[in-house]
Parts: sequence; C-alpha cells; structure tokens
Amino acid sequence: MTTTRQIHLVKRPAGVPVPTDFAVVAVLARDAAEGEIQVRNLLMSVDPYMRPRLDADQPLGAPMLGGGIGRVVQSKNAKFREGDLVRHGAGMQELFVSDGRGVAVLKQDPDIPLSVYMHALGGTGITAYGGLLETGALRDCEQVFVSTAAGAVGSVVAQIAKLKGCYVVGSTGSAEKKAWLLDTAGLDAAIDYHAEPLAEALKAVTPKGVDVYFENVGGAHLDAALPRMNLRGRIPVCGMISTYNGGGEGVRNLFNLIYGRVRMEGFVASDFAHLNARFVEDMTGWLKAGKIKYQETVLDGFERAPEGLIGLFAGKNSGKMLIRIAD
Amino acid sequence: MTTTRQIHLVKRPAGVPVPTDFAVVAVLARDAAEGEIQVRNLLMSVDPYMRPRLDADQPLGAPMLGGGIGRVVQSKNAKFREGDLVRHGAGMQELFVSDGRGVAVLKQDPDIPLSVYMHALGGTGITAYGGLLETGALRDCEQVFVSTAAGAVGSVVAQIAKLKGCYVVGSTGSAEKKAWLLDTAGLDAAIDYHAEPLAEALKAVTPKGVDVYFENVGGAHLDAALPRMNLRGRIPVCGMISTYNGGGEGVRNLFNLIYGRVRMEGFVASDFAHLNARFVEDMTGWLKAGKIKYQETVLDGFERAPEGLIGLFAGKNSGKMLIRIAD
Repeated sequence: MTTTRQIHLVKRPAGVPVPTDFAVVAVLARDAAEGEIQVRNLLMSVDPYMRPRLDADQPLGAPMLGGGIGRVVQSKNAKFREGDLVRHGAGMQELFVSDGRGVAVLKQDPDIPLSVYMHALGGTGITAYGGLLETGALRDCEQVFVSTAAGAVGSVVAQIAKLKGCYVVGSTGSAEKKAWLLDTAGLDAAIDYHAEPLAEALKAVTPKGVDVYFENVGGAHLDAALPRMNLRGRIPVCGMISTYNGGGEGVRNLFNLIYGRVRMEGFVASDFAHLNARFVEDMTGWLKAGKIKYQETVLDGFERAPEGLIGLFAGKNSGKMLIRIAD
Repeated sequence: MTTTRQIHLVKRPAGVPVPTDFAVVAVLARDAAEGEIQVRNLLMSVDPYMRPRLDADQPLGAPMLGGGIGRVVQSKNAKFREGDLVRHGAGMQELFVSDGRGVAVLKQDPDIPLSVYMHALGGTGITAYGGLLETGALRDCEQVFVSTAAGAVGSVVAQIAKLKGCYVVGSTGSAEKKAWLLDTAGLDAAIDYHAEPLAEALKAVTPKGVDVYFENVGGAHLDAALPRMNLRGRIPVCGMISTYNGGGEGVRNLFNLIYGRVRMEGFVASDFAHLNARFVEDMTGWLKAGKIKYQETVLDGFERAPEGLIGLFAGKNSGKMLIRIAD
C-alpha cells in the first residue's frame, strides 16, 4: 500500500471560506481488487457551486466532492486499461480506488490540450451550452447579457452567443478581464463592475434591452439586469456567486418579471446529458477552428485546492481555475 | 350636454398613495355621435396592478385607467343597443362616449350577480385561471401555496387548485380572512402573516414542499416560499404588492432556484385570451355548483374609487374591491 493525500473539509465556513476550514490528510491507498481500478488524479476542478455544498451535503472529515481527470494505474476491471485517461467524480484525492461507477474513459483529441476537457469540453462547457441554448432558449441575433463573462462558464456563454449572431455584453471584475472580453473574446461591450456603476453602465450599452440574461452572480447584478429585460426575456440561472458567502443586498427589482413576462429558471449541468453528443461535436469544432477562446488559471500542487476554491470568490481566476497534480 | 365626473391622478404618489394624489373632476359629457355609444358606468374595479401604473403610463390630469361594467344609454352604433350591459376599459368616468373599441357586450347569466363579472368571471378570474393552469402548469394533486389567498385573484387560484385535487396553503393578513380560507374556501392550511412568523409557519404546513407558489406579494413572502420549492417547481408571478409602494426588504433566497430547477415567470391577464372560452365555461359551472366561493368589498359611490385603491394596500378588502356607481 502507498501513502496518498486527500483534501478534507474540517469546519463549515462562516462566510467566505478560509484555509483552516480545510486540511490535507495523508491516508493509505490500497491496490485495486478484482473488478476495481486504481486512478492517479492529474487535474482537479474548483468551481463556485462547491461553496453552497460546504453548508449542505459536503461531509466533514471526508474528501471534498468534485470532479477531475486522472489516469488508470491499475486495472482489474475489463472496462478500463492501465494508462487510460478517465473523467471522474471521486473528489479531491491524489490516488483512489474505484469499482468504475462514475468513472468514464476520456478520448482526447490530439489537437486539444487535456485541461480543456475540464472546462470548455467539460462540465462548465455543457453548463454554458445547455443553459444558454436550452434553458435560455436563445434565438439567433438576440440581445444577450452575461455576468462574470470572463469566467469559465461565462466566457463560453458569451462566445456561443456571438457565434449565434447575437449582440453580447459581459460584466467582469477587472480592467484586464474587460480587455480580454473585448479584444480576444470579441464581445460587443464589457463592463468592469468594480470600476463602473453597474446599472447605469448596463443601461448605456444595451440600447435594445436584453433578451437573455445569463445569471452567474445574483444580487446587484440581477437588480441591474431586471429593468433591462425585453418582453418575454429569459434569465437562465446558473449561479449566484454574490450570495454564496452570505453577503450582498437583497434583490428589489423582481416586479419587472411581471409586465415583461420574463422567465427565470434554474438548471445544473446534469440536466443536459441529452445534449452531450451535439455539445461535444459543436464545441470540438469551434475550439479547433479557434472560434471559442479560453483562459485558464492553473495552480500547481494538490495541496493548493483550498487556495483555488477560496480564490474564486475574490476573482483570482481568469477563466477556469484548475489544480494540476501531475502530467 | 350633461355634467359628469371623472377621477384624475393629479400627483404621482410618493410611496403609498394618499387621497390628495387624486381629484374628482366635473366635466361635460356630450351625446353619442354617429357610430358612437354613450355608456353609464355601473361598477368599477380597483386592483393592485394600478399602483405601478401611477408611476408610469397613467397620465396626470386624465381619467384613471381601469376597467368596469356599464350600461349603454345612447347608441348610434349598430353593434350595441340601448340597455345593453357592456364591459369596458374606459377608466374612471361616470358617463362616457365611445366608438365601441374596447367595449364588449356582456351576456349576464341570470343565476350570477353582475358584480361577479368584475372578479371571478372577469379579469381577476382569468388571471387566476391562466396564471395557475398555464403559466404555473399545475398538475392534479400537487402541493400549492397561494399568497394573499383571500384576495380577488388568490381566492380563485386557491379554489381552482382544490378542485384539481391539490393540497393548498394560503397566506392572508387577518384572523377573519384566515377563518374564511379554512371554513368557506376549504383550504388545507392558512397562515395569518400578521400574527405568525411566515417562513416558520409555511415550513410547518408544507411537509411535502411546494410545487407551485402563486406569487402576489414578493419580498418576505417570496423569501419564505423559495426554500420550500420542490424540484422543478413553478412560481407564476402575478403581482408583488409588497414592493409597489417602495417599501419592503430585498429578496435573498433566489439561489434556491438553481438546484431546484425552479421556474419563475411573469404574466398578465391579457396573455390568456386564447383560454377565454374554456375559462368562461369552467368558471360559470363552478360558480353555479357552489364550488368557487367569493367575497366582495363594495364601496358605494363613484367618488370613493381612490379610497378603494388605497385600501387595497392596507388589506381593507375581503376578496374583490369594487366601486358601485349605480344599479
């Protein structure tokens, strides 16, 4: 048996998580038994959705829930070969044994870096694709506002909307990210909400209103978007990061839903399994053609996962935040 | 020519409207010319939706917008006969001349009082019917929460849901109205939100959660309902009376939309014109069979319309608030 490490939640956070809410724990990793595989983790995802789970279904003193990409190092299961790359939901563990449930072989396209399977071709990609096209029911050439548009989900949403001929406005939290949205992602307008008054700035750059507001933030962002919504507008609700740590103002402009006949609707990535084949085909094509740009913020070192998660709430990431454990 | 009266908005309200925001204005009423009718107003409606219009499209120094029932007293239009009862949207005028646009002959069922055509068989009735069955996509035997359930819209919503086999909880603002909901309207549970802590009380009486929350109030009501919503629950948004006068707390629990995949959607009565024939047939049958009970708060006297409208925001009405001008 080998020693390996896990990231545990040891204390439920009060507000924004702090490093001492987590611990790196050394445990023994056993070999694969009959029907099992042993997997070495290569990349782990940290995502805003993890924050509400820290108050809810994330067990204390157990590996942090989450997804990653690993390599099979032992296989006594006919579905896997040693050396296979796999996607898994085994959480934050360097090395783990599995009976194969929740683990899927990943066929990497040689022209696409492995890390992209953790965002544009992974969970955040299908979240963007399904949330915008299915929940948001986007039509070509509509008016679109995307919050946290330089983030892992938002950046894909904004660029898919551009590919559909839409007028696209994004919000983000720094001048550097705003420049990326305008110069690289090709948005029509961008707002640095730390530097500009959000509601006024949004009004100024949405002269034709907003048909789809892709909601990642909540609070003041939602209050700014609601008065801009066009008749029968849609607000797919992917996340509300401004509320996850307990802060922020309540939302006051919801009455705009009424006369606008606006629809707000929540969703999660797993709602879009039926779209997966079409998503992979579309997204692979867009990526290879250079039509979807992305940014990654990669922290090297298994033990840095808590730092990565905490950093999401301070906007430390440009695009997808990843933890790289090994190549 | 005859002298008649109109209710004008003379000042846009700051917060809750006060009597001096309105004026009763005497004007000359001319006779009907060729192609026109002259109508004497019998009943006028006052409704919560009028409040936001006082800040928006309600002109100053002109008759208050609104609907009513009148009788044709002169007709030079072949579509109308003198003596016909008509529905109209001519607003708050005792006597008015019309070319017939926006005026429709009303065929009264002899078993149904005329005032019922102003609520259960009128605009509030189809608002309830369409909002619950179409926007809310109610299925038989679901769990339903209705806010302001003793009001004109809420009382019809709650009773239609009971007719569909649902478990129905209603909120209201007095012990007397709560007793009406339980004893007369036959709800499964009721909450007096002035006497009970709303969120705790709602949790206690919704052990199976809420599939449809019919939203008339906003603010604290919505915050109480959101954590109770079941997977793929729906929140048809009819009104947000708590927000119309500028008060109230912001809404903090919207993140519950995400994992619950809850849909919130606004609507107005005119969205349901395609349901009208079915609505009239269903509702007439239910009323004649005694399956839909109603309450009315009738103020006698044209000049009392402002008092009636203001009273809605203090809960002075049980059921539909009406202004009776003449029989």
